[in-house]
Amino acid sequence: MNRYTPEEPIAAIATALVPSAIGIVRASGKNCIELACGIFSRKEKLLHAPGNTLVHGWIENPRLDSGCKKIDEVVIGVYKAPKSFTGEDMIEIFCHGGVNVVTSVFSLLLENGFRKAERGEFTFRAYINGKLDLTRAEAVKEIIDSRTNISRTHAAERLSGNLLEQIDSIKKMILDTIGNIEVEIEYPEDEENISGSFDSSLLEAARKKLSDLEASWKAEKLYQDGAKIVLCGKTNAGKSSLFNSLLKEERSIVSSIEGTTRDWIECWSDFAGIPVRLFDTAGLRKTDDAIEERGVELAKNLSGDSDIILYLVDSSSGISEDDMEFMKSQSVPVLLVLNKSDVCDFNLNGTEKVWNDSVKISARHSSGIEELVLKVKDILLNGEVSSREQCGLGSARQKKSVQEALERIEHALEISRNSSYGLDAVVQDLEDSLESLGEVAGEVTPDDVLENIFSRFCVGK
Amino acid sequence: MNRYTPEEPIAAIATALVPSAIGIVRASGKNCIELACGIFSRKEKLLHAPGNTLVHGWIENPRLDSGCKKIDEVVIGVYKAPKSFTGEDMIEIFCHGGVNVVTSVFSLLLENGFRKAERGEFTFRAYINGKLDLTRAEAVKEIIDSRTNISRTHAAERLSGNLLEQIDSIKKMILDTIGNIEVEIEYPEDEENISGSFDSSLLEAARKKLSDLEASWKAEKLYQDGAKIVLCGKTNAGKSSLFNSLLKEERSIVSSIEGTTRDWIECWSDFAGIPVRLFDTAGLRKTDDAIEERGVELAKNLSGDSDIILYLVDSSSGISEDDMEFMKSQSVPVLLVLNKSDVCDFNLNGTEKVWNDSVKISARHSSGIEELVLKVKDILLNGEVSSREQCGLGSARQKKSVQEALERIEHALEISRNSSYGLDAVVQDLEDSLESLGEVAGEVTPDDVLENIFSRFCVGK
Repeated sequence: MNRYTPEEPIAAIATALVPSAIGIVRASGKNCIELACGIFSRKEKLLHAPGNTLVHGWIENPRLDSGCKKIDEVVIGVYKAPKSFTGEDMIEIFCHGGVNVVTSVFSLLLENGFRKAERGEFTFRAYINGKLDLTRAEAVKEIIDSRTNISRTHAAERLSGNLLEQIDSIKKMILDTIGNIEVEIEYPEDEENISGSFDSSLLEAARKKLSDLEASWKAEKLYQDGAKIVLCGKTNAGKSSLFNSLLKEERSIVSSIEGTTRDWIECWSDFAGIPVRLFDTAGLRKTDDAIEERGVELAKNLSGDSDIILYLVDSSSGISEDDMEFMKSQSVPVLLVLNKSDVCDFNLNGTEKVWNDSVKISARHSSGIEELVLKVKDILLNGEVSSREQCGLGSARQKKSVQEALERIEHALEISRNSSYGLDAVVQDLEDSLESLGEVAGEVTPDDVLENIFSRFCVGK
Repeated sequence: MNRYTPEEPIAAIATALVPSAIGIVRASGKNCIELACGIFSRKEKLLHAPGNTLVHGWIENPRLDSGCKKIDEVVIGVYKAPKSFTGEDMIEIFCHGGVNVVTSVFSLLLENGFRKAERGEFTFRAYINGKLDLTRAEAVKEIIDSRTNISRTHAAERLSGNLLEQIDSIKKMILDTIGNIEVEIEYPEDEENISGSFDSSLLEAARKKLSDLEASWKAEKLYQDGAKIVLCGKTNAGKSSLFNSLLKEERSIVSSIEGTTRDWIECWSDFAGIPVRLFDTAGLRKTDDAIEERGVELAKNLSGDSDIILYLVDSSSGISEDDMEFMKSQSVPVLLVLNKSDVCDFNLNGTEKVWNDSVKISARHSSGIEELVLKVKDILLNGEVSSREQCGLGSARQKKSVQEALERIEHALEISRNSSYGLDAVVQDLEDSLESLGEVAGEVTPDDVLENIFSRFCVGK
């Protein structure tokens, strides 16, 4: 983290470099406001602006004469330490959202005492200045990256400190248990049985909560990263219709992905809150009666690291040996999708015999799509649908620490039942588990872990 | 302009829908702040916030229960009428710059009393509420679209009111002249010569200023819209090297353009302040000794609506008949670019005989590039390099009105020299010219003109 020097005045462009109504250049650090006065038309006004106020004026290049010194008419948001995102003095320059304007304002800051901010450096400063713990800092990146309402809602809960509260309540249970044990050691009820009993109910509750939290990561990861789903099937099975039906369900959040080739189509879709990268291998099969060689090849490549294959079959044509062979040869779960169920009610009982997971739809009439989506979600979550009322874990890093804490507590519970260990050994386990839980919020965190967290942020955050 | 209903609460996303550190949703209109309180965690704080302040809190969906009501942690900028961009009460919600977050906040505003803003509707309201005249309103769009520092500087000058001041000073000259003439009519010095003389020096000055302004549009338009330049030449002439050298000059503002095919490469470059869309037809010619048929065809298509062709020749090979034929057959100016001038000092005297516009460069060593750029600028401006100290006109609409005003003044000057017209006729001309000049700032402007101006803006501005 050598590059992340605190207090040094830093600046970054905080909006995308695409022409838009408003662009933002933000800055933070010591003398941040004084330095900004050097390139602002209303220096006195800005210098004496209270925190949380907006000052209107012009960004000006002090090195140029009056003719072309004016860069843009802006509003500057002023934040005073410690009441700012970073905890330092901060400004946010709201300028017109032209690419040239935004980069010119940013360059001018770099020429006048600011250095370019590293990725995530604003959030890093918020963390080291005690404005955000690590669960909330990680939620900042998470909420920006979230692709569905559910992903965003979970991220927002973590951002609001919900996860931190859960961790703190678990820590309190452990601390209280340590307290109880220490009383037991000091003043044992039964002098002869010093290595023995203490009230483990709090610890059992902590174990349960940690175990739930640990298990939550599977679904949370899915909501964050999404899943890759490949549509396969013969030419006449209706892959393109299904693809379009799936897009139609959530047209608003769908966007095409750049760099796609003509070999397949892909898009992001929302499967009951899970962001899904959907691949359609349509347009490849030239023959009607068999899965064309190139199609199989491609589907194999695509499905290699996919999470589910949706295998479409035309109900009126039935399931052929080709179909069975393809489905059986896959290494990932295959959901058999019986299309054209409106024209031909395929014998589902027969189908259930040949394949475990199946669903009936009509791609053309967009019927059965909801069931299909929920079935996919079921398969992805492996039946583990969470009924948690609170948000789960937000990162693999958090999961690792929670897992370590859980192992220490399970160990503590185990040895407490075994009279050959003393209560001191139990306390040691509990202290270790507290340390692991401390890592979740970032109470003590090595530099390389921090680097790993913040270097994944975008610049300007 | 029926869609642009004033005062009605409107909302729009003001940043690009690309993941970034911060996103902005802005809103304006009657009860704008009261309505925003309905979806904000700190209602009282927001409701009583003074103008030009920032309020921290959470955007919440009032229809959901506590679990998932939180949308995002935001800062809201509060502006009170008339001290806001639109002149109405306004808010700007600074949220995390995720696509889902920004669209969720925007949707929530639409569900809670706001309607989607039309293109340019915020700026339109600024105009109808007297916060901006039309020259400044047009400069808002211009500064967002500007691609080079010079384009942006000129736009910024117009945004600061420099053009409006020039127009006002011309209007004052005309008004003073009308005043002088009316005195002359009421109290003629020479009763017998009532139709005759008045001091026309002010009017001459106004004519000169209007004529300069009118002439400025050619260059200003070029700075705004840019020029299209096509690189042609045989395979070994060094087109790709030149292309890269031209990019290298201004790497920061260059971006590749989406949707390009493999048939040619294109990019935006900065030619001494003129944004240039540069086309390289490289990679097409397969033969060394002739301009391949398809290359000629393509160059012809591309150069059809180009502004200049840069025709590259390898100095060591000399100019062939093919080259001459190609250059002569073009309908747009051709600049002969003599490449590899470092290895072989081609006889420039001889070249000047065969072609009027030529320049010597070394694409490989990036020498002569600056001269090339200035030569291109010269040709584009047709030698009319402006030495104006003030900014020129900002739109074709302004030019049309200035031209009309100029014609009336020229007519007035002409008839004032002709004793068969009375001074009344001169005054009529001057009043007409004032009306035309009034259109520049938008004192009286028909709805269709306004629609035409603001419908070209982006949403959110």
